Amino acid sequence: MADAERKLNNGKSRIDFQTEPSKYRHWKLKIDGEVATLLMDVDEKGTLFEGYELKLNSYDLGVDIELADAIERLRFEHPQVKVILLRSGKPRVFCAGANIRMLAGASHAHKVNFCKFTNETRNGIEDASEASGLPTICVINGTAAGGGYELALAADHIMLVDDGSTAVSLPELPLLAVLPGTGGLTRVTDKRKVRRDHADVFCTTEEGIKGKRAVDWRLVDEVVPGSKFEEAVAKRAQEFAAKSKRPAGQGIMLKPLKRERSAGAVEYGAVSVEFARAERLATITVRGPEAPAPKSADEMVAQGAEFWPLKVARELDDAILDIRANEFDTAAIVFKSSGDPKQVIAYDAFLDANKDFWLAREIRNLWKRVLKRVDLTSRSLVALVEPGSCFAGTLAELAFATDRSYMLIGQRDGDNKPPATIALGQVNFGAYPMSNGLSRLASRFLADPSDLDKAKAEIGKALDADAAARLGLVTFALDDIDWEDEIRVFLEERASFSPDGLTGLEANLRFGGPETMESKIFARLTAWQNWIFQRPNAVGEEGALRRYGSGQKPAFDTRRV
Amino acid sequence: MADAERKLNNGKSRIDFQTEPSKYRHWKLKIDGEVATLLMDVDEKGTLFEGYELKLNSYDLGVDIELADAIERLRFEHPQVKVILLRSGKPRVFCAGANIRMLAGASHAHKVNFCKFTNETRNGIEDASEASGLPTICVINGTAAGGGYELALAADHIMLVDDGSTAVSLPELPLLAVLPGTGGLTRVTDKRKVRRDHADVFCTTEEGIKGKRAVDWRLVDEVVPGSKFEEAVAKRAQEFAAKSKRPAGQGIMLKPLKRERSAGAVEYGAVSVEFARAERLATITVRGPEAPAPKSADEMVAQGAEFWPLKVARELDDAILDIRANEFDTAAIVFKSSGDPKQVIAYDAFLDANKDFWLAREIRNLWKRVLKRVDLTSRSLVALVEPGSCFAGTLAELAFATDRSYMLIGQRDGDNKPPATIALGQVNFGAYPMSNGLSRLASRFLADPSDLDKAKAEIGKALDADAAARLGLVTFALDDIDWEDEIRVFLEERASFSPDGLTGLEANLRFGGPETMESKIFARLTAWQNWIFQRPNAVGEEGALRRYGSGQKPAFDTRRV
Repeated sequence: MADAERKLNNGKSRIDFQTEPSKYRHWKLKIDGEVATLLMDVDEKGTLFEGYELKLNSYDLGVDIELADAIERLRFEHPQVKVILLRSGKPRVFCAGANIRMLAGASHAHKVNFCKFTNETRNGIEDASEASGLPTICVINGTAAGGGYELALAADHIMLVDDGSTAVSLPELPLLAVLPGTGGLTRVTDKRKVRRDHADVFCTTEEGIKGKRAVDWRLVDEVVPGSKFEEAVAKRAQEFAAKSKRPAGQGIMLKPLKRERSAGAVEYGAVSVEFARAERLATITVRGPEAPAPKSADEMVAQGAEFWPLKVARELDDAILDIRANEFDTAAIVFKSSGDPKQVIAYDAFLDANKDFWLAREIRNLWKRVLKRVDLTSRSLVALVEPGSCFAGTLAELAFATDRSYMLIGQRDGDNKPPATIALGQVNFGAYPMSNGLSRLASRFLADPSDLDKAKAEIGKALDADAAARLGLVTFALDDIDWEDEIRVFLEERASFSPDGLTGLEANLRFGGPETMESKIFARLTAWQNWIFQRPNAVGEEGALRRYGSGQKPAFDTRRV
Repeated sequence: MADAERKLNNGKSRIDFQTEPSKYRHWKLKIDGEVATLLMDVDEKGTLFEGYELKLNSYDLGVDIELADAIERLRFEHPQVKVILLRSGKPRVFCAGANIRMLAGASHAHKVNFCKFTNETRNGIEDASEASGLPTICVINGTAAGGGYELALAADHIMLVDDGSTAVSLPELPLLAVLPGTGGLTRVTDKRKVRRDHADVFCTTEEGIKGKRAVDWRLVDEVVPGSKFEEAVAKRAQEFAAKSKRPAGQGIMLKPLKRERSAGAVEYGAVSVEFARAERLATITVRGPEAPAPKSADEMVAQGAEFWPLKVARELDDAILDIRANEFDTAAIVFKSSGDPKQVIAYDAFLDANKDFWLAREIRNLWKRVLKRVDLTSRSLVALVEPGSCFAGTLAELAFATDRSYMLIGQRDGDNKPPATIALGQVNFGAYPMSNGLSRLASRFLADPSDLDKAKAEIGKALDADAAARLGLVTFALDDIDWEDEIRVFLEERASFSPDGLTGLEANLRFGGPETMESKIFARLTAWQNWIFQRPNAVGEEGALRRYGSGQKPAFDTRRV
């Protein structure tokens, strides 16, 4: 098994998810009025880890971090952009997919987290279209293989050059004995609704499908002869832009996060992370706003990236990604908060009042994505609702995202912090759907929708521990005498369980009820891919992933399971 | 890894799925008027494999084969039964779940197939209630742990004795580092709709939950003091029986299948299986009816298990189960048919005309379950629609269940068999839903429901290869010149791919569109469990499954993935 850790490039010790266009090595972001072009031009040498080269526009996590960053910036910094053209800066190749040597040498944990992040990035591309009216046209003017075609699948419209050779393909199974792991199979069946037998042929045909058949089988939206390609692309871009309702206004700058890292902590502006590595714990504390909500949308724009809800969302996102990718030994993430719940509710009310203003909408959408990222984080999640905390409105969603929550009854001996309360807002009833399409409270109260109505009737009230427990908003309400022991025993026990068992348990219990294409990607597809990523036929010494490019054929255990 | 095969008990070389009550070693089926009691009383020594004992009503596949058989017989042989009491014949224990030593010593392939079959059996218990008005009451008068509680979850109503000690539990994660693999997590969240944080507590609490909390948390439907328990059970049985609409009529005997096995083949009455083991192929040929459909329901009852649709369904089911459990090296199953398509349609018409008669309904429901079993079979599935075949109506579903199908255009040179046709019936548009809730044709035509309407307009017609291909009913229509080479190359290629990769690919491509509780069990839950069944934390030398009962604690790799 290839579970030895590769070294990060350039002597780095952590994967960093923060970047900005001036630092991009793999993408060029060009903006021309309403049309943005995202040009993939991967720097072969600019790898995240040592030991491979990113030939033919293949990618590793580093490439995808830049792509995710570019999409975020288009949403916040360039609200006037109405369509994205996603295309290659290299001749004869669109994108060759995830780099195979990177995969072959990566630890199982890195492979799984790499796929999770790239899936989230592709969902983000779709969310930009659905939620912000920013569609993507994928322009394929050369080979789109594997992850390359999966990237295309995230677009609203796929254009393929008709040059007799350019094809789209998902050759993972025949070439590498793994699945297309970035949503490809699910998007083929559920988004593009390719007939299942055509999908079977497509996914087992190494060389892929081109020309008219690619359109007939719904794999692409149109094929265009090379001589008319650019003209057609420009026309489509105009058409899509004309349909978009994005505003023409000025954007805000997503300034670099304030972030100070020490051995045992990360300090952001409104978020702190503390690592208790001996206990395998990470505690994330979110601080409520220090100033009242702005008076106007203009004031919010003026605050820009410092506007409290935006700042917290970005910091929280970075904190979660950092733990996922760099702190594999963390068993549980403990969420705490501190501040004035009324202020949190006031910011929610401000965003509600301005919900048709583009920046307010983008911030709500960012929170939606960050909270989904929390839901999908493979760590036990727990909220401790203590005196002085502010789990209200948007921040209460963090408590509802956890596997369980504990709330302290009353005050602590000798502590003058106000007793813990939870406050609900309208925002808890639909603004932040999980990947299964339901709000966290609707997912919580699947058994009896009247519980949801009871909670709704309490909107705006400061609910003490007894009230919150009675409404089912927290798992346990404990008094000061029991608190410390109960929490300690729980966290110790959690850290004693099998990490894999917990991953599987939580992936099932967190997502009761309906499934959507998005949740199917993270459940059905990802779970099968994770399984395959453990199987000797893929990752063993004689497996396809290890033998790829060696000239030797893989040797398979022929037993079907 | 524990992938060395255990030896079957008593010198057997194959797992046999056929049994009958006189041969049961683990269950007692008692029928008292409208109430059947299924008493679990596992014979410790009656194991399927060597090397373990089935203590405390723990089970292996052999125990579950008897349970599945008993449920089938209640449906066909005892139509007057209106409620099943599922209970233990042992004191102080209901069922301790899947036998841990059996699991610890089983090959990965056996573990996965064991879970699949037990899941299908529990779905069958639910189907008996939903589709045939035969509900189950689970009577828990002693420990129901792990698979024991999962068995209870399949019931319509769970009664728990309130004796201060009897609890229900899912201790798999804390004890064994695996998941409850028989639908437990999904039924907890999606059927019983237990709140997700309560589910988290429940599934991480080794000793389980008892008494009032078990009711409050929706884990059981009622707790009853020991002194009033039997009285309450009898009352509930009466209540459920009173609501059932099952007829009072006489049943038919599910006589032993005619089955002759040779080295390379299995010959049933209307089904043949041929193994080409060098090519890793199994070919299943279904023969159409030899006699016209009966004239009346009475005549069908008189034919009993010999009635062609029932005979084929039972034989096909056995053939599929035999391949799954005993022929791991089979890469692909090829479905063929021979006979008169008009006769097949005539039998379908007969069942349509008698669809309110209990036996016709049970036969349709059996076909539904058998076809679901085909969908979930981890082998590549292909239909060859050749001259002389009868893929019509119900048998056409077999072609629609495959990953791809080939149809020969016209006749073969020097062969006087009639050209292949496909004929659709009303039965293809809803009688046999897949586990995702859609008919196979609706799943096939997700992209454009008008394709479904076009197919519907052709009901009853003999569609030749061109027409079938035009309607999208087959993948490829080939003429005689190309046929042999194309099929050979395809099957060779299929056998050359990674078996695991194909399993994952097919598990994704076969189930486009919506998910149901049932499909979630086989996708989300099962896929995660399969992953965990590969992880050293569960199955490694120091893993929890191997170290259970040894006195040694498991040693875990603490990295979360």
